[in-house]
Amino acid sequence: MSQKIAILGASGYTGAELVRLIATHPSMEIAALSGNSKAGMSMAEVFPHLRHLDLPRLTTIEEVSFEGIDLVFCALPHATSQSVIRELPRDVKVVDLSADFRLRDLQAYKTWYGKDHSAPDLQSEAVYGLTEFYRDEIAGARLVAGTGCNAATGQYALRPLIEAGVIDLDRIVIDLKAAVSGAGRSLKENLLHAELSEGAHGYAVGGVHRHLGEFDQEFSAIAGREVKVQFTPHLLPANRGILATIYVDGEAEAIHRALSERYAEEEFVLVLPQGEHPSIRHIRGSNYCHIGVVADRIPGRAIVIAALDNLTKGSSGQAMQNANLMLGLEEGAGLRLAPVFP
Amino acid sequence: MSQKIAILGASGYTGAELVRLIATHPSMEIAALSGNSKAGMSMAEVFPHLRHLDLPRLTTIEEVSFEGIDLVFCALPHATSQSVIRELPRDVKVVDLSADFRLRDLQAYKTWYGKDHSAPDLQSEAVYGLTEFYRDEIAGARLVAGTGCNAATGQYALRPLIEAGVIDLDRIVIDLKAAVSGAGRSLKENLLHAELSEGAHGYAVGGVHRHLGEFDQEFSAIAGREVKVQFTPHLLPANRGILATIYVDGEAEAIHRALSERYAEEEFVLVLPQGEHPSIRHIRGSNYCHIGVVADRIPGRAIVIAALDNLTKGSSGQAMQNANLMLGLEEGAGLRLAPVFP
Amino acid sequence: MSQKIAILGASGYTGAELVRLIATHPSMEIAALSGNSKAGMSMAEVFPHLRHLDLPRLTTIEEVSFEGIDLVFCALPHATSQSVIRELPRDVKVVDLSADFRLRDLQAYKTWYGKDHSAPDLQSEAVYGLTEFYRDEIAGARLVAGTGCNAATGQYALRPLIEAGVIDLDRIVIDLKAAVSGAGRSLKENLLHAELSEGAHGYAVGGVHRHLGEFDQEFSAIAGREVKVQFTPHLLPANRGILATIYVDGEAEAIHRALSERYAEEEFVLVLPQGEHPSIRHIRGSNYCHIGVVADRIPGRAIVIAALDNLTKGSSGQAMQNANLMLGLEEGAGLRLAPVFP
Amino acid sequence: MSQKIAILGASGYTGAELVRLIATHPSMEIAALSGNSKAGMSMAEVFPHLRHLDLPRLTTIEEVSFEGIDLVFCALPHATSQSVIRELPRDVKVVDLSADFRLRDLQAYKTWYGKDHSAPDLQSEAVYGLTEFYRDEIAGARLVAGTGCNAATGQYALRPLIEAGVIDLDRIVIDLKAAVSGAGRSLKENLLHAELSEGAHGYAVGGVHRHLGEFDQEFSAIAGREVKVQFTPHLLPANRGILATIYVDGEAEAIHRALSERYAEEEFVLVLPQGEHPSIRHIRGSNYCHIGVVADRIPGRAIVIAALDNLTKGSSGQAMQNANLMLGLEEGAGLRLAPVFP
Repeated sequence: MSQKIAILGASGYTGAELVRLIATHPSMEIAALSGNSKAGMSMAEVFPHLRHLDLPRLTTIEEVSFEGIDLVFCALPHATSQSVIRELPRDVKVVDLSADFRLRDLQAYKTWYGKDHSAPDLQSEAVYGLTEFYRDEIAGARLVAGTGCNAATGQYALRPLIEAGVIDLDRIVIDLKAAVSGAGRSLKENLLHAELSEGAHGYAVGGVHRHLGEFDQEFSAIAGREVKVQFTPHLLPANRGILATIYVDGEAEAIHRALSERYAEEEFVLVLPQGEHPSIRHIRGSNYCHIGVVADRIPGRAIVIAALDNLTKGSSGQAMQNANLMLGLEEGAGLRLAPVFP
Repeated sequence: MSQKIAILGASGYTGAELVRLIATHPSMEIAALSGNSKAGMSMAEVFPHLRHLDLPRLTTIEEVSFEGIDLVFCALPHATSQSVIRELPRDVKVVDLSADFRLRDLQAYKTWYGKDHSAPDLQSEAVYGLTEFYRDEIAGARLVAGTGCNAATGQYALRPLIEAGVIDLDRIVIDLKAAVSGAGRSLKENLLHAELSEGAHGYAVGGVHRHLGEFDQEFSAIAGREVKVQFTPHLLPANRGILATIYVDGEAEAIHRALSERYAEEEFVLVLPQGEHPSIRHIRGSNYCHIGVVADRIPGRAIVIAALDNLTKGSSGQAMQNANLMLGLEEGAGLRLAPVFP
Repeated sequence: MSQKIAILGASGYTGAELVRLIATHPSMEIAALSGNSKAGMSMAEVFPHLRHLDLPRLTTIEEVSFEGIDLVFCALPHATSQSVIRELPRDVKVVDLSADFRLRDLQAYKTWYGKDHSAPDLQSEAVYGLTEFYRDEIAGARLVAGTGCNAATGQYALRPLIEAGVIDLDRIVIDLKAAVSGAGRSLKENLLHAELSEGAHGYAVGGVHRHLGEFDQEFSAIAGREVKVQFTPHLLPANRGILATIYVDGEAEAIHRALSERYAEEEFVLVLPQGEHPSIRHIRGSNYCHIGVVADRIPGRAIVIAALDNLTKGSSGQAMQNANLMLGLEEGAGLRLAPVFP
Repeated sequence: MSQKIAILGASGYTGAELVRLIATHPSMEIAALSGNSKAGMSMAEVFPHLRHLDLPRLTTIEEVSFEGIDLVFCALPHATSQSVIRELPRDVKVVDLSADFRLRDLQAYKTWYGKDHSAPDLQSEAVYGLTEFYRDEIAGARLVAGTGCNAATGQYALRPLIEAGVIDLDRIVIDLKAAVSGAGRSLKENLLHAELSEGAHGYAVGGVHRHLGEFDQEFSAIAGREVKVQFTPHLLPANRGILATIYVDGEAEAIHRALSERYAEEEFVLVLPQGEHPSIRHIRGSNYCHIGVVADRIPGRAIVIAALDNLTKGSSGQAMQNANLMLGLEEGAGLRLAPVFP
């Protein structure tokens, strides 16, 4: 029997990606799609690549009837997300893809997002959505907060290393390269093709990117002490994919072992043979995360490289994986699409 | 019960695309993969994006055992294809993706491919693989010849118009823009990123592209007289997709009607509302073909634009659709992956 | 002695391209730069690639003093251009890069641009800026109207053929592929990297692109009768360059001869040996236009392909070439930069 | 009076870039071009973007007459370079763009390049070609060794910091992103458009890239002790440009001051205002290097980012700057081309 799904914010890239995934999902059915700025339009007009699907027309959020809806994917901007989710019926499960419920500490939210949280009770209820590390809590949750796509990439590489105690917690550098769809379908000069193609540059340099809030929260919790990483994202002239090159102090072999053991049973996180490392072109359009470990020539240092697709494993695929758990479905349902290469 | 599949030439892009499609196909199973130049390697080494799949190692063709194999996809270069298929057991079905069995006339083969055909008996048995137009023959065939990817694009736009008699057969211009994966994984200077990116140029200009052999054969057969089109392909700085802009003498309305009627029941060929036209970014990674019709400002002239993914609907997706028919499976099985955008 | 130059609209791509060209021009000096939306900013903030140059700060147009200015490049949007140029002192020479003064017929202007012209007297004074064909008039002009970049490309290929009478005037199809910088630095969804990269599509299909106004005006004038071409532009996933593939009825040899003779003495328009044809990657960043001719397999038909850089030969380079003439400088001064490849 | 120039290895990208630069150089003239694999061809055939120039035909090296040649640019592969330069007349000045004469220590050469050096006497004579740091030696040299393009980028950022003693020498991480033209015009699978576009990956990960030989040599010499950096290059889906993100332990302000002071008088190395950082799209096609400094949120750590064009400032532009010095010409002659953006 099909689960009835509503997607709020379906006119953005993560919304469209959810529709793409549901298109081949064995037991989900789209009952409602909202997109306030494009309400009244068909999805074929907004996203012609979904033209072959029989989809409900875009409406405003107010027009969505939540009766009979099993689960809502909320792909709205942060701040908006809070106020919308607060008003949803309590019997509807929610996977939020925004930043609104990622930070458990209200003060941290204010620090990174610049305003008070308007739904603190919901925040305390929300479960952090990094599936492989919060699986049980997610299965029982009503509200799951999808992680930042950069935050997910860094955590897949680093959590097992912090847990295993195989790296120096004070010397972690995450140099991340992100494709442009992570910035959404927003009209900004630096996202134009003419600006970005044949370009590459850092952004939020110096430790000011908001996903640091997630790194701080999660890594400190695991370590049982404050952990602060260095994190510099860069924009790539590409559409999909995140590559995180992570410099750590530790033995490559122990690091590789910690990762291999941790992910041995995981379907979507693959640890490459030691010495190999991944490329974003090999995970494009898929829910797979590839991780590699290489020893540096300087003894006691290693490089860990992780790659995932920001729109899939980094957001909408992760959201689907969590939704499957929340609805009691098979966790990987609809998520085994092989990467598209070339 | 799963059908056992062998892919010969699995180290090229069409071979990898077949594996990608089979990965989510409900009733196919890969029993053998050959790739002579990379025999002995794992698919994960040759195509790391398929790393998550449990696949047989690449072997030489000679090492493949065809016992129990239901169907072979032959993704080898032309000429090689002939000699390999000639030696296969007669009880194995074959979908050939090369150019070797597309042209029914042996003289035409020699004209376009520069040498005598070495398996003329097989050629007379082969069915031309444009699914929507040879469905019944394909379902009963042992050997199906996949079409050229450019040839498929042009035919989807033009066959119904020639059949319906709504265009002037002597004034057809196909200006085609093709992404680079159609040229395969071959080491040629003009396929390098540094040469192609930020570039665009015509090739095989002047009516010398081999896919003209298919246009001539098919269009003349439909029309019952010789039809010769103008056809100029161009190379795009993109990886996947073909966009054919076709200039015809005819009334846009009648043209749109002929296309809409012809494809009304077809799942994978979609005719856009009149006046709209497609983009390759909206069919990427999928088996869908989008066709649009626009009237020109000059009365009596129209532009028909067709878009498909050369690796999917243009070759491996088409091959899969044909294989489904040949094996008595549901025609669209494994082919409903939504396009990947952005 | 240096000529003093003002650029109005210096915060757009054509404005920046003018600055780039003046940077190595032997006898021009930038005295003023306006950019209303970015007034008060330095050029290094707006265009960091010009950081090494010592340039005046951006101002509003009102703040520009035209005293002592020899020539103004006006790189403003159409309609705005008219009203600004109308107010300039009569002793300042003006090269306008907008569409405002390209069409000599006021009715044609209204047809293509949707409103009445507000400076009809200036329009009658303006000289059409296709340098190689209006050289003498340009040298004596006060106001020169830069051509459309697509219009320039098509005209370089076709004018000599119409003049020489070697093609059928009723069967001209211009299939044009244009890189994205021609659309300017405007915030439109379809110009985003995530939308355009790996894409390609037609636009203004059906004979509705405004540059048709220029084709109609110029071709009809040469032919002495009405000439209407078919013209379909496409957007390429590239930043610079226009490739026009033009289908004509005529003998390739006569066509090649007509082009070769016409451009024999021209420095910036190069006719390739017969049978060869150009690529946009070979004219990038330069003022050169490459033209090739290939005979089609259908007797009596030929393909003419022209390539130029929309920002250089198609607009700012052309503007500079015209400015040189107007100021009595050497025509090619500052314009001999070799294309940047790769 | 023009200096007569020969370019050996003119059929590669650095060779073509030298021709591009000489095209607008006020006092250089190309007397000979060799390219063994393409001997007999015209440059217009090998590099159609240089079609407008009147250039000598490509010959073999053996066919080049060095009589009257003032300076040779040697753009051959390493190892070949040694043996060719050894045979040149002693009165010809030589700028070598290969790796053959960069490492002063013969043992280091063997370590990084895997074989004994065949011209040790020449190596002891050669001057390392990082212009801003070896200016006087270069001016008096007969043989100058062009630096590695990655090595140049890292050194521009780091040399002044090591000299000024403002960073911890044991904690230097260079995460470098390089466009593909740095790999040359070689036919390798990973350089194909279909492989690289929409991709990004590390290479030579773990401290095995040969340019480390240069870092070790130069940084240790400045510091007066052994300095070993971590260095991980990545391949970008772009054609030109290197972006080096460098993580150091030190105070951002002191770092910015050291850089600003060191480059205050340098024309081609620009230090951005503190807190700003560069992009490769802003130096494309030019000889400019942009450097920025940002403080990290972790006190005592900073990020230095440097960008240059690998084919210009990273190789052929640097070579030209050195040639100017060696020939007694103005150092920046022919090198003031503004970057091409977009």
